[in-house]
Amino acid sequence: MKIAVLPGDGIGPEVTREAVKVLESLDLPHLALSEGDVGGAAYRRHGVPLPPETLEMAHHADAVLFGAVGDPACDDLERHLRPEQAILGLRKELGLFANLRPARVFEGLEHLSPLRPEIARTLDMLIVRELTGDVYFGKKGERTTEDGEREGWDEMAYSAPEIRRIAHVAFRAAKAMGAGLTSVDKANVLETSQVWRDTVTEVAQGYREVALSHMYVDNAAMQVIANPAQFRVMLTGNLFGDILSDLASAAVGSIGLLPSASLGERQTGYGTFGLYEPIHGSAPDIAGEGKANPMATILSAAMMLRHSFGREDEAARIERAVAKALTDGIRGGDLGGDHGTEAIGAAVRERL
Amino acid sequence: MKIAVLPGDGIGPEVTREAVKVLESLDLPHLALSEGDVGGAAYRRHGVPLPPETLEMAHHADAVLFGAVGDPACDDLERHLRPEQAILGLRKELGLFANLRPARVFEGLEHLSPLRPEIARTLDMLIVRELTGDVYFGKKGERTTEDGEREGWDEMAYSAPEIRRIAHVAFRAAKAMGAGLTSVDKANVLETSQVWRDTVTEVAQGYREVALSHMYVDNAAMQVIANPAQFRVMLTGNLFGDILSDLASAAVGSIGLLPSASLGERQTGYGTFGLYEPIHGSAPDIAGEGKANPMATILSAAMMLRHSFGREDEAARIERAVAKALTDGIRGGDLGGDHGTEAIGAAVRERL
Ligand SMILES: CC(C)[C@H](C(=O)O)[C@@H](O)C(=O)O
Ligand SMILES: CC(C)[C@H](C(=O)O)[C@@H](O)C(=O)O
Repeated sequence: MKIAVLPGDGIGPEVTREAVKVLESLDLPHLALSEGDVGGAAYRRHGVPLPPETLEMAHHADAVLFGAVGDPACDDLERHLRPEQAILGLRKELGLFANLRPARVFEGLEHLSPLRPEIARTLDMLIVRELTGDVYFGKKGERTTEDGEREGWDEMAYSAPEIRRIAHVAFRAAKAMGAGLTSVDKANVLETSQVWRDTVTEVAQGYREVALSHMYVDNAAMQVIANPAQFRVMLTGNLFGDILSDLASAAVGSIGLLPSASLGERQTGYGTFGLYEPIHGSAPDIAGEGKANPMATILSAAMMLRHSFGREDEAARIERAVAKALTDGIRGGDLGGDHGTEAIGAAVRERL
Repeated sequence: MKIAVLPGDGIGPEVTREAVKVLESLDLPHLALSEGDVGGAAYRRHGVPLPPETLEMAHHADAVLFGAVGDPACDDLERHLRPEQAILGLRKELGLFANLRPARVFEGLEHLSPLRPEIARTLDMLIVRELTGDVYFGKKGERTTEDGEREGWDEMAYSAPEIRRIAHVAFRAAKAMGAGLTSVDKANVLETSQVWRDTVTEVAQGYREVALSHMYVDNAAMQVIANPAQFRVMLTGNLFGDILSDLASAAVGSIGLLPSASLGERQTGYGTFGLYEPIHGSAPDIAGEGKANPMATILSAAMMLRHSFGREDEAARIERAVAKALTDGIRGGDLGGDHGTEAIGAAVRERL
């Protein structure tokens, strides 16, 4: 079980450290951890946010545990040198096309949601976001208009095979959950969405038990806060998924608890290769103070055990331990409590 | 004061009728109303959702009062024949580049917001959305990949002059309100956003009294629900504005109350040419039943008097009358009350 640990910037190192301790405490066979530089930390040491040796390490691992990237000291760098580019590079180079983002309000934590409690309680969805296509990775550039003015442009595109691949991930998840699936697009305006909608509808033929519906992205944004109960699995492209998954996370109200998985196509001896990261960022304002909540990273490690190592038992053990710690009142500052990073990590390990 | 009234589909005719009655009751000089077909209604009569005679009528008017388009009976038509294309066509053909969408929670109606009341109360923002560029109107199409697969593509683009034009609208509004301005983009991924950000920053030089900040669209979606108090004027492109303005409306919780203005460059003898419409759609489920709340359309007529006719007094009178009617307990079904379309229209007129 080769895991590349990429702590990155800000609170990344603190929170990954606790997740690693959780993994180490589980007596997993052949656990082999290695650590690499990424983000602003990598830029300072290697002059680039994603050094070749880090990419190489990730390529040879069975899974990647990722902290966070983002560093205000790098704000003035050219775009391709900025920390955030490392995560885009990893997605593209490792073929991590399927981003899984569960968003649900933990029992007893409804009061953290900006939504009214009776609505917040009904929020429990999985967003499946395509991660290697769309306007993110299309041709792009700057050109000069006839009048000598600047014009920026980015091509949005999706091909049927790209859509099929991510649609199967979402339909399989919906089927396993016995749930319906909502596909989000902007087919009243975009040709990309027209192909998206047609292809998703085709893929649905193979999953008769999954009820499929289509929704425009503007309406989806409204519905996520007005009536989240209607969503169980949501399938989206890269750009709309970026916005909607962050919106759903904000609706949960405790982003210090939300994990994510980014899966590739490569099968290792254990399962599907993937990268796992908390959805909170590097939080430079509290970095190094031992205050960050490591629960999202610990839950990301649980997703890793499930998807990349086929270890459902241990994954569920971690998730139960986190839930138990929360019920027992273990709370980071982000949840209005005063437990520090190490104390929370220890509390989770005690409950495994 | 030549106004083209385009009622459109579903509840469009009912709600525009009440707004027209409000305008007629104001003793405006030289008020001349004409009515045109648009949307599904136009498709049925003329075979297209935006007939040339409707466009012609709008071109010769000083302002357009628009109901709603959208008709389930047209769902199977090719995209360019669908009702929604009429509004895209009007925006493009009339050069309506500036969409103004105020979103605020009316006093006493906090309980309608899906947000917790203490957050809902702080929501009071104006979204300024660019309406004639972006991925909406760029080159687009479908092509075949090397493997013979379908691929849809849409080009997103913004030139500096397009950005400057909309930025000035937003900065002027912010200056008049004594407020700050948040410009939303995705500059960590998009070249379009890079030009957007640079150009907005340049325009800001002419408005030293307006504090400008930039925010990524994913973060903006989070902040609109987590901490709306930070926003007073938000400047966005067409696509992000579509999503964020609908999100802000859903956060208000009473879309039956929300108006919008879409302004062009053309100056008439009275003010700026514009199209005014409620942000709710055609609501086919309750069409023709006299249940629809006309307040959003009535408030759109108020925006028309302000922006297209320079009649601030009458605009404010309408707005006060609507607020008064609400305080007096006049509520449509959408607000949990049982007043019908005509009763609400009459109640507003009585309070003018
Ligand atoms: C950092 C940024 C490029 C990235 C994205 O937009 O994908 C982030 O917002 C995310 O969602 O992981
Ligand atoms: C109907 C649709 C094309 C339109 C848009 O996306 O602009 C609508 O959502 C709006 O916001 O007015």
